[in-house]
Amino acid sequence: MRFRAVRGHDGSSGHGHRNGCMRMSLTGRELRSTVSDGTLRLALDEIVIDDPAPDEIVVRVEAAPINPSDLGLLLGPADVTSMRSDGRADKPALVFDIPETRRAGVAARNGQSLGVGNEGAGTVVAAGEQARDWIGRRVGMVGGGMYADLRKIRTRDALPLPEGVTPAEGAALTVNPMTALGFVETARSEGHTAIVHTAAASSLGQMLQKICAADGIPLVNIVRSEEQVELLRGVGATIVLNSREPDFRTRLVDAVSATGATVGFDAIGGGSLGSDIMRAMEKGAVNRMTEYSRYGSSTFKQLYTYGALDLSPMVLDRLAFGFQWSVSGWLLTPFLQKAGAETVMRMRKRVFAELTTTFATRYTKTIGLREALEPGTLRAYERKATGEKFLIDPTLD
Amino acid sequence: MRFRAVRGHDGSSGHGHRNGCMRMSLTGRELRSTVSDGTLRLALDEIVIDDPAPDEIVVRVEAAPINPSDLGLLLGPADVTSMRSDGRADKPALVFDIPETRRAGVAARNGQSLGVGNEGAGTVVAAGEQARDWIGRRVGMVGGGMYADLRKIRTRDALPLPEGVTPAEGAALTVNPMTALGFVETARSEGHTAIVHTAAASSLGQMLQKICAADGIPLVNIVRSEEQVELLRGVGATIVLNSREPDFRTRLVDAVSATGATVGFDAIGGGSLGSDIMRAMEKGAVNRMTEYSRYGSSTFKQLYTYGALDLSPMVLDRLAFGFQWSVSGWLLTPFLQKAGAETVMRMRKRVFAELTTTFATRYTKTIGLREALEPGTLRAYERKATGEKFLIDPTLD
Repeated sequence: MRFRAVRGHDGSSGHGHRNGCMRMSLTGRELRSTVSDGTLRLALDEIVIDDPAPDEIVVRVEAAPINPSDLGLLLGPADVTSMRSDGRADKPALVFDIPETRRAGVAARNGQSLGVGNEGAGTVVAAGEQARDWIGRRVGMVGGGMYADLRKIRTRDALPLPEGVTPAEGAALTVNPMTALGFVETARSEGHTAIVHTAAASSLGQMLQKICAADGIPLVNIVRSEEQVELLRGVGATIVLNSREPDFRTRLVDAVSATGATVGFDAIGGGSLGSDIMRAMEKGAVNRMTEYSRYGSSTFKQLYTYGALDLSPMVLDRLAFGFQWSVSGWLLTPFLQKAGAETVMRMRKRVFAELTTTFATRYTKTIGLREALEPGTLRAYERKATGEKFLIDPTLD
Repeated sequence: MRFRAVRGHDGSSGHGHRNGCMRMSLTGRELRSTVSDGTLRLALDEIVIDDPAPDEIVVRVEAAPINPSDLGLLLGPADVTSMRSDGRADKPALVFDIPETRRAGVAARNGQSLGVGNEGAGTVVAAGEQARDWIGRRVGMVGGGMYADLRKIRTRDALPLPEGVTPAEGAALTVNPMTALGFVETARSEGHTAIVHTAAASSLGQMLQKICAADGIPLVNIVRSEEQVELLRGVGATIVLNSREPDFRTRLVDAVSATGATVGFDAIGGGSLGSDIMRAMEKGAVNRMTEYSRYGSSTFKQLYTYGALDLSPMVLDRLAFGFQWSVSGWLLTPFLQKAGAETVMRMRKRVFAELTTTFATRYTKTIGLREALEPGTLRAYERKATGEKFLIDPTLD
């Protein structure tokens, strides 16, 4: 615990109640990422938490996962090989160069200091008037800025955790579980009966495999190594293709034809893998036709790209897709908005019911906030090695 | 007129009625395109038209336009520079090589002789039992195989032309007019208020310009030469960008920002122009935002690709699009099926009402079927030069 109460604005000590109204300020550290003039800087800033509004709580963060999507904001355009230290032992900072070609893409965040960490869990240490009964409870949260000692948040963005659930278990209730369920919801609502997924050995990919197995949806998993093939087979996957095998494209057509997959979810984005998937889906559909059509099949094929593991442009050999196709961005928040409250509630219930099974995340290393800015540690979690998953616990220092 | 009546199956002479039932056979020529073993062959085949079914008519074709989409089927994968004659003066044929790299894409049509010509107009010369009152009438038609002396077709695929409408005026009722109207219907039904169009100086592009002007929809026209800029200005266009100008990208962002365009229709398909349009639409949307979001704007941007003037892969710099985007194929037939009968009827009515204004096509040359297979003529219509438009009239020989 690094945060401490400080004097309130009126000079009274913090944490005190006066006239039934809490007057307090708390301070702590927050990991912030700042782009300015061709460099990206990571530092632990001192933050002061002001009085929570009536519907707000202040949470002592005890666990926050490092998801691939967090790295996008944390390091995004930076050249990791250019990393250098720029701080003191008690106030570490790291600086990176941003390659010329990536600067235009982040011009809009120039000069802004941004908090990082989409989701986390912890204990409520203070609350606004309408949220008093939250104090002392353990909650899961989503909303950014979780790599911090303290996070002030609206109660509607926090969920009380069931008794016995640890912060580590409750820290990843949203990004991966809701995305994996969101893929299945999206596929179903658009009439697809089988799914293709890339970078499928990720935590998200393992959840998707478990959901599809439980729901009887054929899933074609695409990975990049034998190690990842084994990992997915270990959680019950039956169809796993290694894109580095020489006969990958043939096997992809076979798998897509056999399952009838017409939708893909792609975490990679750059290069031609998405195109390969679309071509395979069209080929599977054409194989089911009896007559030639210059326009290709009448089967609609959809590729959703939800990540950017490869920053290079996406190359679409779309003449091999026919005319009934779409390639689109997929992002959790707009999906949830469009899905509606009832669907979101149903998804949330499933996440809670299967929190320690389908939606369990296995962390291989837990680090403190200061540790997260050690060059060797950063290199390790930035690498996104197969099976490795980091958790930040700010109480560790 | 080259077709002639031949003996019916029962030995009686053609064109005769017996027991109230027409017994006849008619013969004529049809332009056919055949892919086999690495070559593409165009020839005028002799065809025999059998008795029409009760709801069918036989039309003497008097006009059929050469649209870019027809060239796709006629020549598709062929290397035009490899053209050579392979026939007799009275039975001309042309043969082309298909480059190795394009063969896989046309494997499905290997060995099949395909009729060409999506739409046309002519006079009904014979009819099935339920269609007797069509005889002698002039009709517009859609359905392929129109580059022929005769076309047997179901009455539901033909439309009687108003008195005084010439075959040339009635030959292009569907492909360009319904596509141009289809773009506007698509944009409207998906909530877009301004449109971007590429290869905008085409006959289709000119129609789209006139529709958008009449309906008050801002249209950003993209062309490739000053000649095309002038052509479009001549039909009332106010926003025309030449993609070969050095400041094109900047001007595109300006035009898209000013109009608020969020949908593009692209005839080119290959290369990075589609990506440039999407980037400009996102940039316009981001400029309207007050706060940075790593996910880009929340504005949905759509690019439809409906042609393939550039056969190379489509390259999407999608990291510049945000996450709210989609790139899709657009094809008239599925659009019409999805739009429903009421919408299609409303569109058809407009085409007829504005047949000689908005939807008039200006042909620069009318050729016969045999002429269409003369190397010099083929090179001329295959080039798709600005402002040039060919019409086939099989009665010219």
